[in-house]
Amino acid sequence: MNSLKQSIPVSLKDITITDGFWSRYVELVRDTVIPYQWDALNDRIPDAEPSHAIKNFRIAAGEEQGDFHGYVFQDSDLAKWLEAVGYSLAGKPDPELERLADEAIDLIGRAQQPDGYLNTYFTIREPEKRWTNLNDCHELYCAGHMMEAAVAYYNATGKRKLLDIMCRFADHIDSVLGPEPEKLHGYPGHEEVELALVKLYNATKNEKYLKLAKYFIDQRGQQPHYFDLEWEKRGKKSFWSSGLLSAPDKKYNQSHLPVREQTEAVGHAVRAVYLYTGMAEVAAETGDKDLLEACMRLWDNIENRQMYITGGIGSTVHGEAFSFDYDLPNDTVYSETCASIGLVFFAHSMLKMQANSHYADVMERALYNAVSAGMSLDGKHFFYVNPLEVWPEACEKSPIRSHVRPARQKWFGCACCPPNIARLLSSLGKYIYTYNDETVYTHLYISGEAFIPMGGDTVRLVQRTNYPWDGNISIQISSDIEKEFALGLRIPGWCRKADLAVNGEKVDISETILNGYVLIKRKWNNEDRVELHLDMPVELIQANPKVRANAGKVAIQRGPLVYCLEEADNGENLSAITLPLDTSLTAEFNKDILGGIVTIKGKATRKDESTWQNQLYRPFEYNEKPIEITAVPYYIWGNRKPGEMLVWIHYK
Amino acid sequence: MNSLKQSIPVSLKDITITDGFWSRYVELVRDTVIPYQWDALNDRIPDAEPSHAIKNFRIAAGEEQGDFHGYVFQDSDLAKWLEAVGYSLAGKPDPELERLADEAIDLIGRAQQPDGYLNTYFTIREPEKRWTNLNDCHELYCAGHMMEAAVAYYNATGKRKLLDIMCRFADHIDSVLGPEPEKLHGYPGHEEVELALVKLYNATKNEKYLKLAKYFIDQRGQQPHYFDLEWEKRGKKSFWSSGLLSAPDKKYNQSHLPVREQTEAVGHAVRAVYLYTGMAEVAAETGDKDLLEACMRLWDNIENRQMYITGGIGSTVHGEAFSFDYDLPNDTVYSETCASIGLVFFAHSMLKMQANSHYADVMERALYNAVSAGMSLDGKHFFYVNPLEVWPEACEKSPIRSHVRPARQKWFGCACCPPNIARLLSSLGKYIYTYNDETVYTHLYISGEAFIPMGGDTVRLVQRTNYPWDGNISIQISSDIEKEFALGLRIPGWCRKADLAVNGEKVDISETILNGYVLIKRKWNNEDRVELHLDMPVELIQANPKVRANAGKVAIQRGPLVYCLEEADNGENLSAITLPLDTSLTAEFNKDILGGIVTIKGKATRKDESTWQNQLYRPFEYNEKPIEITAVPYYIWGNRKPGEMLVWIHYK
Repeated sequence: MNSLKQSIPVSLKDITITDGFWSRYVELVRDTVIPYQWDALNDRIPDAEPSHAIKNFRIAAGEEQGDFHGYVFQDSDLAKWLEAVGYSLAGKPDPELERLADEAIDLIGRAQQPDGYLNTYFTIREPEKRWTNLNDCHELYCAGHMMEAAVAYYNATGKRKLLDIMCRFADHIDSVLGPEPEKLHGYPGHEEVELALVKLYNATKNEKYLKLAKYFIDQRGQQPHYFDLEWEKRGKKSFWSSGLLSAPDKKYNQSHLPVREQTEAVGHAVRAVYLYTGMAEVAAETGDKDLLEACMRLWDNIENRQMYITGGIGSTVHGEAFSFDYDLPNDTVYSETCASIGLVFFAHSMLKMQANSHYADVMERALYNAVSAGMSLDGKHFFYVNPLEVWPEACEKSPIRSHVRPARQKWFGCACCPPNIARLLSSLGKYIYTYNDETVYTHLYISGEAFIPMGGDTVRLVQRTNYPWDGNISIQISSDIEKEFALGLRIPGWCRKADLAVNGEKVDISETILNGYVLIKRKWNNEDRVELHLDMPVELIQANPKVRANAGKVAIQRGPLVYCLEEADNGENLSAITLPLDTSLTAEFNKDILGGIVTIKGKATRKDESTWQNQLYRPFEYNEKPIEITAVPYYIWGNRKPGEMLVWIHYK
Repeated sequence: MNSLKQSIPVSLKDITITDGFWSRYVELVRDTVIPYQWDALNDRIPDAEPSHAIKNFRIAAGEEQGDFHGYVFQDSDLAKWLEAVGYSLAGKPDPELERLADEAIDLIGRAQQPDGYLNTYFTIREPEKRWTNLNDCHELYCAGHMMEAAVAYYNATGKRKLLDIMCRFADHIDSVLGPEPEKLHGYPGHEEVELALVKLYNATKNEKYLKLAKYFIDQRGQQPHYFDLEWEKRGKKSFWSSGLLSAPDKKYNQSHLPVREQTEAVGHAVRAVYLYTGMAEVAAETGDKDLLEACMRLWDNIENRQMYITGGIGSTVHGEAFSFDYDLPNDTVYSETCASIGLVFFAHSMLKMQANSHYADVMERALYNAVSAGMSLDGKHFFYVNPLEVWPEACEKSPIRSHVRPARQKWFGCACCPPNIARLLSSLGKYIYTYNDETVYTHLYISGEAFIPMGGDTVRLVQRTNYPWDGNISIQISSDIEKEFALGLRIPGWCRKADLAVNGEKVDISETILNGYVLIKRKWNNEDRVELHLDMPVELIQANPKVRANAGKVAIQRGPLVYCLEEADNGENLSAITLPLDTSLTAEFNKDILGGIVTIKGKATRKDESTWQNQLYRPFEYNEKPIEITAVPYYIWGNRKPGEMLVWIHYK
């Protein structure tokens, strides 16, 4: 098979992040989130719903009495924790954490069934119903997460135990599902295992796993429809409710069409981007250009029709789903944190095939906005839903906005987002660069050090930047020997003017830019220094006029950061604020606010409510009073007293 | 009891409407809607869900075999039809229609049980469960509608049969429910019977019915809560679903507090305004000033906090309900036609106690906008939900807008709105004037003739106007003898300049205006003529800045009519249109458009979509192109090819 991979990420063991913006998050994950989640998995968080995840494994292993508790996909919480632990250990060894993880892995091993099967729900509750409800029951989803954990832990520690456990389970899955007549011709109801099987293939080089991933992807949506056959076979019942149900909704889990025929992102947004990531990974490994083209079409649909300016996806709470092109309501939005994390995965998989900055631009947009908004500054509170407009009274009293919370929550009954943030942030290093023998692409501007193996040599890159607060990036290259390669630097889509110098000498960007990356090809000597300056003014952004929700409104953006107004700075009723298009907005670093942020200030006007008595309507009168507004980065919203928040501001 | 009634409406038999705007509707109801509904009640409409309403009565009467079908409140459809027939016969005798109605009444009589009980659901399906679930089962609601029908039919024809049937039923209800220890201390889950009992009292002068109405009103929301006791008694079950349920939602049906303690309109909007109307009617008849004050508080909350500019109420589909103050979303709106009809009832009941134009202003607003929008120009298609912003693709693909239809529907499974429109429009005459011995108040400007009995004499008023297309109203007064009284003419809230002349002589309005009515007190001679000119320019209206949904937007209004943009006139994507505040808008009568309407035209701008490629966001550029817009009255929208519609337009 001819791989379509053009570049690969740097091993997490070879990269260190020492970044003003991200290190705090990475450390929070390591020092707070991972320990907190371990306590959660062990039901030790006071006032929080118990997780039962570890307990379920103990019961499945026959070491404790009791029934299964939690969601049918509860196992995946332990898997995501282990995956995060793997990444974290790769970055910074921690013997005590490794000991906890090893214990958990031993427990997982003891819960594995003799035939390799591993799922505590079915083992405890319904062993006879294994593989009878792929549509609802997340067996393959949980398997996928545990495979990802196994690979992460193996890569970090070299320990094969969980990897072996998951290979045995993958072998078992391969014996049950597949194209052969005697096997079930099914595929997951919640995609995830496809991308995980590619990781397992990469870790083990066992092509069986890649083949199985490809089978799941190609079988999806074929006729006769597996989920219909399965549903009839189990008596037209669903796992989620008693009584007879109509046939499963195919769009919800992207099985409405064979994946190569799909052109629009539909259904549950997390499922969708996990599927597309799996498709991209399979395309990359197998050289499947048709599949790559399907990925490109779906990417284009998301990026240019269905994505919030924050990198959020999923416009509706109903099915936590995409709705349709240009439907991007700000207040009834879903924009699940996990979905933006999945979008980062998809972007990263595409980048490995095509060093094209529009993938990295979206990856950056999601990381600096929707994803980082998902976690509080204390690392202990999380958003599941990431709105762009919040009116707290409406969250309480308007049923269509009751899924939106004006403050981050401690933990969730369905706790998918917090561990997903943890595994993403603890592996952030791998999203910064990709490389091949000729080129190192820099996708993200994050301070730190990377050791990149290129054709037998190791190149050391040291990136220094105050990004996203300013646009100055310095990269120092060192190599044991003089080394010729191209250094690719992404010129972000938001940047309209960039200056580049190598060892103090200005380089004309326009001549060397390719697909959004300026390529500096030269023989690099030790201590060569590249200086990139990205002009980072405050910009007013408008949405495509087809986005009804943003008509007459602009958003404030500076660099990769989307800004918002909060009640804490601007008082109640943010929708009464009008931003004159000719206003001058000033960015200023405030080290004392919310851990140190750039705030944006400027003159605006506000409807003078004192001119209104107790009345709803009156003939128009211009009654605006001048005010000064303060905007803060979107990711930081909701870290003060709960109140209103607004991204898209009326302009005049 | 000292009545608080200060004026009363004119009998429908004494009033004729010959109005350019309304006669078409009144005739449509008489000639099309009533016959169509009779066919519907008899299951004779092809391609429409059968009603079963007549069939249920036949089965209950023992004249046919079969099971009950339809909603538990299906009987009310026949009641509302009979009520409309009554009003229609009062205006214009029709022996064939009367024969059909008499047959239906005979059937109702045969379906009545020996003890007076009347309800086909319980008679056919669960006779042992009568009065066990007032919260869910609409027994009193159906009774109320049939009482209203009985009174209307009696007033029109003098025939007592249905009145007697309903008195027997009312007596039975009074024997089952009431304050005495041996009776059930309940009240309706869906209010309606309260106002109906006052009508029955007015027709029969039997105070028992007024007392029962007052009991239902005062008992509502008292502790221990009747609906909780009842729910426990029937095993914590609901009529609407199997399985155990939590205690009934009290706010949904306004039983969360005793009514005198209520200050905000909450819950199901139709239930709410039916209750408030009943409260006002009881207050008026019993002289209960406390109750009147509760009505005034609730009125104020609706008028000044929770009403759409169209006179629509109910912001959310969840429970077809009010949500909270200033929450008036235009696209996810509910604004059920029936709720605006109920608001007209409430306004009318308040007007009888207080001739204050803000009641009549709202009544007019609802009638000319939300209510008349409810029916198509062919009288055969109806809106249940009346949105202020429609994007047809969203109605289809966005779950939170799936209750909104871009075109009127033929009939509804829950067919409450069409017969409600029919009964309102066929009784429109009674909303025009109220009078007492000293004063005739003119609340609505509708051409026609009225004979008003004043202190033994009959005053004839002939009103001529082209309202709402212009603001010229002429009223000719004739009386057999010279007669002294005050003629009150409402100066609408939308009118900023009015001129008045009596027999050609100008009268200074400012000196005689009281609570929004100019009072012309004089000795009227035969053929006296009053000329009122209401200045009716096109106005741009703004909403209170607390209404987040309308920030940065204006609505176009002329006289009582709210205007809207339709795709048919203005192309796709109406949200891309911006109205400059200094634009000049011109009103012009077009006799060929939609049956003859005043359209409003003017210059605006539209975002130039040709400057956009396949992208969602970009830095702001001013790219507006000049366009001419055409606005049409809101009530007429959706009578052409289905498309977008917009009331609140972005301004600049």
